[in-house]
Amino acid sequence: MKHRIAMAVGREPVETLIINAKVVDVFSGLVRHDAVAMGEGVFVGFGHREAREVVDAQGAYLLPGLIDAHIHMESSMVTPARFAEMVLPHGTTSVVADPHELTNVCGTDALQFLLASSRALPLHIFLALPSCVPATPFEDNGAVLEAGDLTPFMDDPRVVALGEMMNYPGVLQADPALLDKLALSRRNRKPVDGHAPGLLGNNLDAYLCTGITNTHECSTAEEFHANIMRGCRIFLRDSSAARNLPDLVPLVTPGNCHRCAFCCDDRHASELLTAGHMDEVLRKAVALGMDPVTAVRLCTLNAAEAEGLQGKGAVAPGFDADCVLVDDLASFNVRATFSRGRRVAAEGSVLTQLTDPPLGPLLNSVRMAPLHENSFALPLPSGKARVIRLYPGSLTTDEELHDVACVAGLFDPRRNKGLCKLAVIERHRATGKTGVGILAGYGLHHAAVATSISHDSHNIVVCGDDDADMLAAVRRVDAMGGGIAVAGDGEILAELALPVAGLMTQDAPQTVVRALDAIHSLLHRQGVPNDVAPLMSLSFMALPVIPALKLTARGLFSVTDWNFVPVDAGTPR
Amino acid sequence: MKHRIAMAVGREPVETLIINAKVVDVFSGLVRHDAVAMGEGVFVGFGHREAREVVDAQGAYLLPGLIDAHIHMESSMVTPARFAEMVLPHGTTSVVADPHELTNVCGTDALQFLLASSRALPLHIFLALPSCVPATPFEDNGAVLEAGDLTPFMDDPRVVALGEMMNYPGVLQADPALLDKLALSRRNRKPVDGHAPGLLGNNLDAYLCTGITNTHECSTAEEFHANIMRGCRIFLRDSSAARNLPDLVPLVTPGNCHRCAFCCDDRHASELLTAGHMDEVLRKAVALGMDPVTAVRLCTLNAAEAEGLQGKGAVAPGFDADCVLVDDLASFNVRATFSRGRRVAAEGSVLTQLTDPPLGPLLNSVRMAPLHENSFALPLPSGKARVIRLYPGSLTTDEELHDVACVAGLFDPRRNKGLCKLAVIERHRATGKTGVGILAGYGLHHAAVATSISHDSHNIVVCGDDDADMLAAVRRVDAMGGGIAVAGDGEILAELALPVAGLMTQDAPQTVVRALDAIHSLLHRQGVPNDVAPLMSLSFMALPVIPALKLTARGLFSVTDWNFVPVDAGTPR
Repeated sequence: MKHRIAMAVGREPVETLIINAKVVDVFSGLVRHDAVAMGEGVFVGFGHREAREVVDAQGAYLLPGLIDAHIHMESSMVTPARFAEMVLPHGTTSVVADPHELTNVCGTDALQFLLASSRALPLHIFLALPSCVPATPFEDNGAVLEAGDLTPFMDDPRVVALGEMMNYPGVLQADPALLDKLALSRRNRKPVDGHAPGLLGNNLDAYLCTGITNTHECSTAEEFHANIMRGCRIFLRDSSAARNLPDLVPLVTPGNCHRCAFCCDDRHASELLTAGHMDEVLRKAVALGMDPVTAVRLCTLNAAEAEGLQGKGAVAPGFDADCVLVDDLASFNVRATFSRGRRVAAEGSVLTQLTDPPLGPLLNSVRMAPLHENSFALPLPSGKARVIRLYPGSLTTDEELHDVACVAGLFDPRRNKGLCKLAVIERHRATGKTGVGILAGYGLHHAAVATSISHDSHNIVVCGDDDADMLAAVRRVDAMGGGIAVAGDGEILAELALPVAGLMTQDAPQTVVRALDAIHSLLHRQGVPNDVAPLMSLSFMALPVIPALKLTARGLFSVTDWNFVPVDAGTPR
Repeated sequence: MKHRIAMAVGREPVETLIINAKVVDVFSGLVRHDAVAMGEGVFVGFGHREAREVVDAQGAYLLPGLIDAHIHMESSMVTPARFAEMVLPHGTTSVVADPHELTNVCGTDALQFLLASSRALPLHIFLALPSCVPATPFEDNGAVLEAGDLTPFMDDPRVVALGEMMNYPGVLQADPALLDKLALSRRNRKPVDGHAPGLLGNNLDAYLCTGITNTHECSTAEEFHANIMRGCRIFLRDSSAARNLPDLVPLVTPGNCHRCAFCCDDRHASELLTAGHMDEVLRKAVALGMDPVTAVRLCTLNAAEAEGLQGKGAVAPGFDADCVLVDDLASFNVRATFSRGRRVAAEGSVLTQLTDPPLGPLLNSVRMAPLHENSFALPLPSGKARVIRLYPGSLTTDEELHDVACVAGLFDPRRNKGLCKLAVIERHRATGKTGVGILAGYGLHHAAVATSISHDSHNIVVCGDDDADMLAAVRRVDAMGGGIAVAGDGEILAELALPVAGLMTQDAPQTVVRALDAIHSLLHRQGVPNDVAPLMSLSFMALPVIPALKLTARGLFSVTDWNFVPVDAGTPR
């Protein structure tokens, strides 16, 4: 601190001075020409002074480092180091990561890994501790995180919030385990991320009463206003799966903008590589009519305030020296990114390759009981089946009854046009639990696809029209320690290894994108309709909270009945 | 929490429902007709629902409870219970109190007393821990508060900040004891109140670098903008001694208003009784052109955010049910005040008399060594004196050299027209230290006035033209356990007992105001010019940080030289 004061006063030279910058002042809502001095990782002041290094911004705009207020990094399918390499060149210097997927597989090991990542990387990874692991009580996932498990993490300054409280029916029923987690966060004066799409009126009152402080699930004007007036901050979301900016940006006013920030929630590697990250969100917001300085404020100071990120979100003395130089406030084309005073990215690339901390217990997370030729056999004595109907572009399914053709009393997809066999295999504790069902609307033929990404428990989901191909695909996923595999005629036709918790890889994101492209093309060629996302749709087949009929490793689950139901429609439910 | 959820959802009736209110929504910047439900001391939701008690607001505006972001309650001269009785009817439900004066006398006992007061009273008293006790290293005050003394208090949820860091030269010099206190606050993630009038440029950069988060000492546009752009929040001040609203209100814009709040700093009982408190600040701000809802936001949510007051500052589910009903957004005439869901004041009065916690160690704080007839003797062998020149309406003085008439080698005020004798007597540890000097510009004759209010060490200051009267006045202050006394011809002519730390009383504020009026009138009659504040000016005569010449119990101090100097001008300095 002594040295910092000396640099600020001018008794000692500063480390870096950025001159000729148009500084975006998120406190005043103004832009002004100024020089910005940095040292010891923080901004020490404005104006010219003696410096060891001078950076000429050549008239570029200087913004505070961009902040994603809520993201699941797992959606990029790459590890934090690879993720950081993608987003730093786009100006992102901080993210609030909710590792809901990683912790469902690896529990607190995932939290330790991410805290180590945060310490090792120039991307500041703040954690929101997942509040709903497992997502439902009747699932087989890799870990259970109760309030007691989260408590030791709350002291870490990098742990900033309790992650999205998705179990809102549980909150409204005052579920003691959830109230314990909410109390833990309140005691630690940390925000609680909300997740309650469509909740309004008294139920929203009750949900927010418990101390939930923000939501990123807002998609309509009604929800926006209902949340704002109740003190719930809005994270305007631009995820790869949900584009809320066009609906929400017009609702942001000078009077309510202090309660808004931006987040990406889920963002695929392909989009991060091509379109960008928070720079793309800024471009979109400004194109939709938001005042550019306001947009920057949402993406910096407001996010920092909403998630309690100390010393982040502004260019001002004592704040962390995270900043971005951009060409202008419309394209937001990033020239250079600084993290804690060091230039870490320029002209689209990081300046040094980044390294993950040891992956340790996140590797070898796939632990399956041996499978047999008849593991996926599905006897249907009645010849009538309860079938999951999948719809394009939707995560909700319907329950349908079908008369099906069997061979030796067993369901045979090849004799039932339009139907595939679907299986979910427990893969965390090698219990051998395997649920088998029937899927309509997927269309896959002469192939099988298996994936270890299946929300939220991330068991292995496999779909196909031939037991041998299904077996081959699952065994390949097992052999890779997690990932995605497509098999046909007993051969592996395409694959992507995801050895980190079965969800991520340390390979280059470009490699991931190419592999995913190949798998998607292949699956569409093998019959998956072009308007169905072949992997995303399967990944949600095992999530028994979205209506109406889903499959878990314990069997077919009717979300409507909130209970398991037999596949054989001749058996009473 | 279970009951709270049940009330919010509507499974159980709420405790109180306020209907027909125009709710000021500080999140949206809007006003809307709504019903507001309360229970368990918090707001549980909006809209009609079953309630045990219904309050018809009859179209009144419902504001969040008003917050004073920075106040020294000592300036009212009454104890917290009496203070609360004054301000609750004016809509104030929370104050951030900086007990700089009380702690200079009673140290941590004062902090314990105020925390007990906060628990006992419906006024929420949050504490900013005084950072500069003593104010200077060469003073005799009642206590020393180092970082280690403050540490145990930082955990209390009612302790919200480190109090105003007045020793800004010390900060710029990186004084280790000050840096320790700043580090303590940073570790506890608590704001630090600033106090550095006129600081700009590099020095302001350095001061803010250390983690100082707000200032209430801003009086010009230049200071306002310099602080705002550096991330330092502005508390627009309307104190009895410094009226900054006319200069600052016009500078508040939609772009920077999120960084502003209001405070009173010092407010006398007379003003609190007649003009009001934060309601008066709102009236003034709106009269000066501020948007009324913005003004309310500054006085509620912004203050809560600036000082980290959890659950304060808004009418919203889960927030503390502190609110105020006012006639309109111009007069801000308060109809009723609610604190944690209970109606505590209406139509100008509190609904129950309030009680201070036991005063304990705050009583009997005056501990003086015995005085003698010649305690105030001032030998001036050279016949030339270094004199303090007092100016009307100013706290700064000048040093003047005077030829003075002596009797038996001792200075005699009655033979030196326009000069008074001034003495400061140490009164915390009965050390007997007594400084004697000469004051020009005070004009008092045939009387002496003594007071135990003397910033910041609160030793006893006495001024007069006759040693016997001075002795009588000081002895009366001692006998009262602190206070103010005027003596003439050996008799006590007027007095105000301030037995609580020598600064405050439990008597009714009206009594205090009457006594002060009587003392002021008497002193003006006895020669104090009408444009000199007779008590305020004396109270600052012993503060050796304001230029140029002051008197302490250790002798005459030249702030210009930053050293003690002799009164006899014939002695080399």
